[in-house]
This record gives sequence, C-alpha cells and structure tokens, in this order.
Amino acid sequence: MQDAGLEAHIDGLGNVYGKAKNVSRTVLVGSHTDSVPEGGWLDGALGVVYGLEIARVWNESRAGGNDGVDVISFADEEGTYKGLLGSKAFCGSLGDLDTRQTVNMAGRSLADALDEAGLDGRTDIKCDPSRHMAFLEAHVEQGPRLEVEGAPIGIVVGIVGIRRHFLKFRGQADHAGTTPMKMRKDAGAALIRLASNLLRGFGDNGAAGTVWNIGNVTFTPGVANVVPAEAEFSFEFRDTSGEVLARLDKLVDDSAEAWNRDSPVLCEARRIFAVEPVAMNSDLATAIGAAAKRCGVKTLSIPSGAGHDAMVVAAHLPTAMLFVPSIGGRSHVISEDTAEADIVAGAEVLAETTRMVLDGETGVMQ
Amino acid sequence: MQDAGLEAHIDGLGNVYGKAKNVSRTVLVGSHTDSVPEGGWLDGALGVVYGLEIARVWNESRAGGNDGVDVISFADEEGTYKGLLGSKAFCGSLGDLDTRQTVNMAGRSLADALDEAGLDGRTDIKCDPSRHMAFLEAHVEQGPRLEVEGAPIGIVVGIVGIRRHFLKFRGQADHAGTTPMKMRKDAGAALIRLASNLLRGFGDNGAAGTVWNIGNVTFTPGVANVVPAEAEFSFEFRDTSGEVLARLDKLVDDSAEAWNRDSPVLCEARRIFAVEPVAMNSDLATAIGAAAKRCGVKTLSIPSGAGHDAMVVAAHLPTAMLFVPSIGGRSHVISEDTAEADIVAGAEVLAETTRMVLDGETGVMQ
Repeated sequence: MQDAGLEAHIDGLGNVYGKAKNVSRTVLVGSHTDSVPEGGWLDGALGVVYGLEIARVWNESRAGGNDGVDVISFADEEGTYKGLLGSKAFCGSLGDLDTRQTVNMAGRSLADALDEAGLDGRTDIKCDPSRHMAFLEAHVEQGPRLEVEGAPIGIVVGIVGIRRHFLKFRGQADHAGTTPMKMRKDAGAALIRLASNLLRGFGDNGAAGTVWNIGNVTFTPGVANVVPAEAEFSFEFRDTSGEVLARLDKLVDDSAEAWNRDSPVLCEARRIFAVEPVAMNSDLATAIGAAAKRCGVKTLSIPSGAGHDAMVVAAHLPTAMLFVPSIGGRSHVISEDTAEADIVAGAEVLAETTRMVLDGETGVMQ
Repeated sequence: MQDAGLEAHIDGLGNVYGKAKNVSRTVLVGSHTDSVPEGGWLDGALGVVYGLEIARVWNESRAGGNDGVDVISFADEEGTYKGLLGSKAFCGSLGDLDTRQTVNMAGRSLADALDEAGLDGRTDIKCDPSRHMAFLEAHVEQGPRLEVEGAPIGIVVGIVGIRRHFLKFRGQADHAGTTPMKMRKDAGAALIRLASNLLRGFGDNGAAGTVWNIGNVTFTPGVANVVPAEAEFSFEFRDTSGEVLARLDKLVDDSAEAWNRDSPVLCEARRIFAVEPVAMNSDLATAIGAAAKRCGVKTLSIPSGAGHDAMVVAAHLPTAMLFVPSIGGRSHVISEDTAEADIVAGAEVLAETTRMVLDGETGVMQ
C-alpha cells in the first residue's frame, strides 16, 4: 500500500486500509484477501490488487488534486470466524460481537486468534460517506455465465437474497420386509414425494434467475431393510427480488402444510436462514458499462449468486460490483483461475470506472 | 434336550440337535437360538422351545413306537458371521466356506470364534430325508398383521424373495448460488425425481403383497449450498412371486435406462442382491389350518417378509412355518414380545400339526 502511495493502516479486527494522502474525496476500491481452506488465488485478492493498481496509477498520474483512491481489504469475508466480519465492522453494523463466543470450526475463539495476531479487536477504520464517494468491488464470478456468454466483464445488478429451509419428517421405523405398505409411516418416502413436488413447484413458480438446491438429505436409521423413521433435508434458494423470495417462502410453507393435512408422517418445516437481496447502484452499473464500451470489452448484466462485502457496504455508500469470468465456473478450489486477458480487462474497466466517478462523469456526485 | 428325552448333539459349527431315541421316522421341529445385538427373547428361541416341549410331551405319552420328534437349533441364523449358516450346513448347501475369511462386523473371523468355543468346524448333523418326514418352524411374525387381524396363528404360505438395487447418479458439484439452473448437472435432483417415479411405479405395478423400501440416501458432498455431484440410494423390494419380482426388476432397469436417454446426469443401476422366493409345503399349511381349527384358534395366511432357516430346509424336506403375533409388530428390539395366550396357542397348534404328520393325517406320507 505504501508502494502505491497510500497511508497503510490495520485495525484491531484485521481490516487493512490504504488511505490516499492529502485528499478529502475518494473512491474506495477493494474486496477481501482471506480465503476458504484450499481456495484459489483470485477469490477476494483480485479486487484488492485492482485497488492497489488503480491507486498507484492515480497517484502517479493525477496527484495534486483534492481526490484520490482509497483501498481496503476486509477481514474474514469467508466467515472462518464470522462471515463479512470486516465490512460489517467498517460499516458499524457488527452489533455486540462477543469475540470469545465467536469460534471457528475447530472451536478456537476469535478472541484467541486476534490475540495471537497481536490485534486488539478495536475497529477504528470506518466507512465515511463524506470522504468515500463510492465503493467499487471487483471479484471473480464463481460461476459459468460470463465464460459461456464470452463476456469478459459482468456488471452486477444486485446480490441475491438467500433463503434456507430445513424440512424434517417424523415417521416410524419398521421392518421393510414384514410391514405391509399400508401400515407404514415412511419418513423417507414422504421426503422423496414432497421434495419432488417442491422441485416441480420451483420450476413452475421461480423467476427467470431464481436458483434452488437440495444439497443434503439424511434418512434415519439409514438401513436398506428398515423403513426410515426420520428423514430431513435442507432446501436453499436465491433471487435478486425480495418479492420472489417471499412468494417462494410461502410455497415451501404451503407444501408442508398441505402434506400434514393428508399424511400420518409429520413434516416440520422451518426457515433457518434468510438474507435479503441487495441492489447495486444503477448509476455506477451504467458507468461500468460505459467504461467497458470505451475499453472495447463485452459485458453481461448478471446477479451475484454469492454474498460479498459489497452487500454490506451498499447500505452506506453508492456501491457497484464488477465480475471477471471464472474458468470453467470453478471457485473455492485451488484450480480457480481467470484468463490473463480477462484479468487485464477487469483492471482497465474498473480503473476507468473509478476515473469517471472521480471526474464527475457518473450520477454519483462529488 | 436330555430332559425332553432326546440324545443331545452339537456339531462343529454350533448346530444343536436333539435326536429322538430308538425311532426311524421323525418330524423335525426347531428354529435358531442366536439373536441380533440387543434383540428380543422370542426371535428364534420360541421355535426351539416349542420343539423341546413337543418332544417332551411325545416322549411322555407316545413312547414305544417307531416315530418321534427331533429338535434342532440352527447356528448363526441372523448372520453375525454368515446368515443361515447352520441350516445351510445341515442341508449341505454351504459350499466352500473359508472360516478364516468369514468375519463379523468387528473383523473377527469365524475360525477364531469357533476355536474359542471349542468347535472344530465339522458338520456332522445332517438333514436326512429318510428320517425327517417334515420340518416345522415356528417364529414370531416380526410384523403387525396378525395383531391387526386378531389372529393368534399365521400360516406362512411362502417366504418372500428379496431384490436389492443400488442406484447411483453422477453429476457435477457447482456453487448453488452462482450456477444457473440450466447449467447444472444436479445428481440430487435427479435422484429425487427418479426415486419419486419408482415409488409411484411400484404403487401401480406391485402385487397386493409386494413391499418396497428406500432405506438410505446419500448426497455428495452433502452441503446445503453446493449442487450434489453424486447421489445414491438402495432400493429393496420383496414378494412371494418370482414373476412379480422379475417384472419389478425390469421396471427398475427400464426407469434407469429411460432416465439416461434424457438427462446429462448419468444413472447407474445395479442389482446387488437377489434371493428367490420359497413356497412352503401346502399339505403342511393345510394341516396347520386344521390343527388350529381343532384348537379353536383363528388363523391368517400370510407371507413371511423376512428370511428364515425354513427357506433353506424347504429345498430338502416338506417344510412349514407357523407365526405367532408380535406385539406392536416389534422385533429385533429388546421390547419384542408376544401375548402369553398366543405363545400357548402356537405351542398347541404346532404340537397338533406334528401329531397329524406322525399319525399320517396329512398329505406328507410316512
């Protein structure tokens, strides 16, 4: 950060901030540098490196004015301890976080991890709307669409909301050879029938961009010749529209309710997780499109199906996201990669977008 | 066995045989005395105790003739080491069993277990059709039907054949938020759809007494926000008719084949287990009915949905099975029980059936 001409700061939670010197108005550019275990080299880090490069170029070519480029790397975006930790702290939306009660999968507390890193837990790097005109986050797509469409730049229209429901069926274990079909309370067959209906229902009622997934199913006791006593599955779906999500929430609840009217196997459906969708700033999205056009690069407007720091910051600053293609759609694996030409295109388009904001060429006003 | 007036023998695999003295023609009565872990007190043992009691009464009241009652307790019916071990040895249908390669769930070999019990593995207790006129096995039903119908005696018409198929779907793991529905190869959704079709198909095409079960389902990697790369399940079904089983085998194979014509997710279906149904001797079944009538006890003709030693012996001797009710249909649990009146009724009907065979009152000829 110092090499890029910035003042380097780290706060007590590990947010790293490069502050442009002697200016009062900036565009904040960045993402995160933490990774999932065995994750790839671009998820997060690319957006921070773009920020450093844009700040370096700005400071070399445009120094002396009242505006500049700030860079940020948010801590623990992936949630080793708590997802979006750094950006929430930055925006003051972390609430009362007890770092001793916040643990990783191995049971180690965030308090201990901060101690070992020599960090005091205090968060003095703060979002400042009087300074930060906009937040621009570039990221790898983590999906196949840009590659399939041959577009080096994705303009993110919004970050999807997420719903996760947990459905549990309670029947009765019976010998699968000696118990006639009509005398069974088969939790497994109940799950298969209801899940099949839900998949069909989402195909009929989801919006064009809605995605849904049954990622795991468990039968108990889980033995070939025993009628399942219990069966459960998680059902997750995402969409950029809060209305669509609410309609689909109701579809799940109604399906469980209808099931319970007809069956001796009880279905208990609970919504265990809900994140509302976040729209990106449309003026900034338009600016990305114009910048890409100037750079001669094809774009595609797409939703982000995964969460990002931008969804936290968007409540406080005009915020936009730019995606570059993921080869084969792969991410969160060591083989994650992006073609070098696309990496360069992303840097150029994001730099041009940053310039447009700073030069007052967008709807985001200085 | 000696108290019941029999010569007691044990062979090198643990079959225990009580041989009637000074007679040349007998009815063989028995079952097994081993149990599943934490199993109940009646599964198996009841049929052996019935044999002892019938032999005792016969020897007290009818001694001096040329016929009598032999009693047998077959080793390892439940398959701690190998299912139906004792009855297969008795019938000479064990094949080349390597007792060092035959292990229990803890990995201990049958050879070691026999050694510790002081048994030499030799099988000198043999089925002898010139002596054994018939085999009668009483057993708890292990299902709910007799209790529901209020019948103390079940006349077993046959032992069901069993088929077990294993169906595996190979798709591709993808981020469940960033991968559009049309670009997925979702092994989990494939499983749910095909399994749902199979359950419906079996409802439409199974015979009146067919039973089927999906006892276990596994999704890989099994995470809420990852599209399942692989999904698999076991599908077991049973019927007393070999023709019905063959028709249903074909239904499974045809379903998998039709699936593979339409879907990028490959379904691999393998039949991993097949046991043919075994009919019980109809003359003996008729005799049980007549004996029950004489005893004033209601009967129900039912299939056996579970395997029994009788299915091995039936290939060598006229064989019948009599069931007594299982309270609540429970078996293979410590709470397994049968009402005392039903236990007595079963003993009386089986004793009367044995007498009818020995006195030449059935189609089974002396």
